[in-house]
Amino acid sequence: MDYKSINFRQKFGLFNEQWQPKVVAEMNDYQFKAVKLQGDFIWHDHKDTDETFIVLEGDLRIDFRDGPSTFRRERCSSSQKGLEHKPDAEREVKLLLIIEPCGVLNTGHEGGGRTAANDIWI
Amino acid sequence: MDYKSINFRQKFGLFNEQWQPKVVAEMNDYQFKAVKLQGDFIWHDHKDTDETFIVLEGDLRIDFRDGPSTFRRERCSSSQKGLEHKPDAEREVKLLLIIEPCGVLNTGHEGGGRTAANDIWI
Repeated sequence: MDYKSINFRQKFGLFNEQWQPKVVAEMNDYQFKAVKLQGDFIWHDHKDTDETFIVLEGDLRIDFRDGPSTFRRERCSSSQKGLEHKPDAEREVKLLLIIEPCGVLNTGHEGGGRTAANDIWI
Repeated sequence: MDYKSINFRQKFGLFNEQWQPKVVAEMNDYQFKAVKLQGDFIWHDHKDTDETFIVLEGDLRIDFRDGPSTFRRERCSSSQKGLEHKPDAEREVKLLLIIEPCGVLNTGHEGGGRTAANDIWI
């Protein structure tokens, strides 16, 4: 099979853990990851890659150093490499992350207990 | 501004042409393009890049050489480089394409009248 049809609703039904991105598709050397978020996260940045996500359900607030911004369903955010940010969601948010693979971690270079295992496919 | 919030609904309100992808965001050397499709397209492939899209509205049929596949709202498709395909939509489909920039054309290497101008931002 040289192509895949991915149903996001079905994929989000496969897991409940929050802040643990799961790979759902790959394109060249990029991966698409489904993730559920709730509550706040740590301040971090990604030094070597821009970051883009699409909100599929819920409202996601992201704090930047110059103030917060809220991203709703069917909105996409793209931020440049090195930009510090801290996600925060009052209720659960379902998100599609588009992020470089091979060592790009959810916490950037911050490490610590909020760092998710990489390359977990569902 | 080091980040952008992109509202797909607003972006799709900015144009009516079909089969003319418009860039809405950039991430590293990749671009995200909004496109409206209706009717059928030509057989083509992309020799040097995989292709991924997300259906935001409508049902999109894609013919592959081994048969058709239909992609609905909130489904994503990823296909490997070099895979021949031909999109076909009975009613208008709104699609988010994720595709390499810099010369990756909507018609692959087929050329012809269905080839859209590249790098058109909205």
